[in-house]
Amino acid sequence: MEVYLDHSATTKCSKRAADMMLRLLTEDYGNPSSLHTMGARAEEYIKEAKRKIAKTLKAAEKEIVFTSGGTEANNLAIFGSVEANKRAGDHIITTDVEHASVWQPMERLKELGYRVTYLPVDASGAISLEDLDRTLEPGTILVSLIQVNNEIGTIEPICKAADLVRRKAEHALVHVDAIQSYGKLAVCPKKLGVDLLSASGHKIHGPKGSGFLYVKERTKIRPILFGGGQQKGMRSGTENVPAIAGLGEAAAELYEGFEEKIERMYALREYFIREVLKTEGVTVNGAKGRDCAPHIVSVSVEGVRSEVLLHALEGMGIYISAGSACSSNKPSISRTLQAIGLRRELLDATVRFSFSVDTTKEELDYALECLAKVIPLQRKYRRK
Amino acid sequence: MEVYLDHSATTKCSKRAADMMLRLLTEDYGNPSSLHTMGARAEEYIKEAKRKIAKTLKAAEKEIVFTSGGTEANNLAIFGSVEANKRAGDHIITTDVEHASVWQPMERLKELGYRVTYLPVDASGAISLEDLDRTLEPGTILVSLIQVNNEIGTIEPICKAADLVRRKAEHALVHVDAIQSYGKLAVCPKKLGVDLLSASGHKIHGPKGSGFLYVKERTKIRPILFGGGQQKGMRSGTENVPAIAGLGEAAAELYEGFEEKIERMYALREYFIREVLKTEGVTVNGAKGRDCAPHIVSVSVEGVRSEVLLHALEGMGIYISAGSACSSNKPSISRTLQAIGLRRELLDATVRFSFSVDTTKEELDYALECLAKVIPLQRKYRRK
Repeated sequence: MEVYLDHSATTKCSKRAADMMLRLLTEDYGNPSSLHTMGARAEEYIKEAKRKIAKTLKAAEKEIVFTSGGTEANNLAIFGSVEANKRAGDHIITTDVEHASVWQPMERLKELGYRVTYLPVDASGAISLEDLDRTLEPGTILVSLIQVNNEIGTIEPICKAADLVRRKAEHALVHVDAIQSYGKLAVCPKKLGVDLLSASGHKIHGPKGSGFLYVKERTKIRPILFGGGQQKGMRSGTENVPAIAGLGEAAAELYEGFEEKIERMYALREYFIREVLKTEGVTVNGAKGRDCAPHIVSVSVEGVRSEVLLHALEGMGIYISAGSACSSNKPSISRTLQAIGLRRELLDATVRFSFSVDTTKEELDYALECLAKVIPLQRKYRRK
Repeated sequence: MEVYLDHSATTKCSKRAADMMLRLLTEDYGNPSSLHTMGARAEEYIKEAKRKIAKTLKAAEKEIVFTSGGTEANNLAIFGSVEANKRAGDHIITTDVEHASVWQPMERLKELGYRVTYLPVDASGAISLEDLDRTLEPGTILVSLIQVNNEIGTIEPICKAADLVRRKAEHALVHVDAIQSYGKLAVCPKKLGVDLLSASGHKIHGPKGSGFLYVKERTKIRPILFGGGQQKGMRSGTENVPAIAGLGEAAAELYEGFEEKIERMYALREYFIREVLKTEGVTVNGAKGRDCAPHIVSVSVEGVRSEVLLHALEGMGIYISAGSACSSNKPSISRTLQAIGLRRELLDATVRFSFSVDTTKEELDYALECLAKVIPLQRKYRRK
């Protein structure tokens, strides 16, 4: 049996999305900038994808900017808003538990002279609104928060945070990294009260190389890639029509019967956690219940190194991740696990199981069965 | 009959490339950063694509950085090299006939305080080495040249220019925008003597959303997208494995029997030019013979507006471009056509026919036949 439980790293592209892509690669392959009908048809596919995505977000079509993926969307949100807002101040707030595609741009901004405050998190991985309140100042120009942590699944209090920002820092834009939340929670930027929101295609059964940045109407940001002025100048470069249309299709597909899908995933998650905790020395990290995303389970296994566990399970056809697999494959100590104050001996004894809407109870049962075999065995080896 | 002659705008993805993509989207869909075998397999596809592309360039695999397309490759080359080299000077040289994905970054650099010299071109569209010689200074840090002009096809004297740069500006890197030349000429960065070279996938029957930057070994440039540190930190973001593998496949396919393909295109181009010039008031822009790329023919038609001609031909199933179709679809006066000193009344009376390796004599004959019908008709309408 093969069980892929690494959906937070990447997902299989859905058949509908892949069929759409194939058609646009080999038949309707026009360049949207071309003035003839093939160009116009390509443009129409982009509009259609915008319509589909805007609908899932309850946003307007013109608020969607397509990017080459989540990393570019986060980079565009951060550099683009800071560049547009730099006259208003030099202070930026983010958290200790961001994905590298947020904290690496932040480190770059520090090099450029900006002041960056990293908010700490509690043991569940959530920031405190009091901390945010204390940190906001009139010169704060950007607050960038991850919505669902990619390693432990904890949901940050975006709505309340955005509200606080509005009241205390009039020039600050609020950016949400929704790469792990879009398609797993109802994500509505207007309800959240945010200005910018990033998402990625390949995390939601869309194509790799696709993503978008939601940019609230009238929000000023500057582009980071310059050229032909596509997408109203916000993102130059021939639009990746097949990937954009594939992303639109994947989003539309995912949001069909969305609530039931999410409920099902939550039920599976609760089940998996209940069962996995029956093994001695096993703990689950992150927030509980609905304060956590439905698809991520971070499991610490005392006495078993994460890489060893990963490869033992791999031998049985189960694919998981050691920490976050969204960064290049040098294993390093997870910033998130450190930030939640995980005991030192568990830092490299933690693995991530991540589900998709297609994950079944049978798959989880097989994974649980394998875990129950592997854990005592590895502990025994280690003691020798 | 449908005849697509807008291959410089975009091409149809080849079946081999599309099949490869489809497999990697829906079967072998791992994230190269994942530590399990699915990740390792994805990584292997990337290595294989690098091998294929490096072979076509006679370069080393480690000299290839994959990007989301030509625009990103040009932006990375320009901003990345200037950022890495800024201590050595503040002067940059480029030409009057660059694609927007080069001159727009240059305009941005001017905003940031850099000095940018735009070299003029002669009536054929070629720069003069004397001009370059006069302009180079010890503080020149980048010389960025287009190899094949995207509107008129003229080939710039890259090799001699690079040689001059080496002798007169020791800190300057030489970047070549090879987006219209890769796959149409034998492009060998070592032979050209350049440090950086950009190419795009969708111009060579590969997927949209793919491209690469050749970065000569030991050349220091800084990334423009920050995150998980993929591609040795040069380009963060989950690698677009399907597009990368598709690009590798398209490159390998194109370079099979490459010289014969190019000779065939040159012969078709000569034929097309000879025939099209038989109509009164028709001129062909750009350099002659082998000083021009084999796939682009820029045609000025006295007394017929380019958009009118484009749509008249479209009605007969022929797809061409008015000026450059790589930029967003606002028609504007072409910088290249102005730079070559084209007569004012021809600036908006110029269209581009661009071929691919699959273009046939029958297709060109049909296009010529339609042109011969359309041109007198449009002129007649206009006179009324």
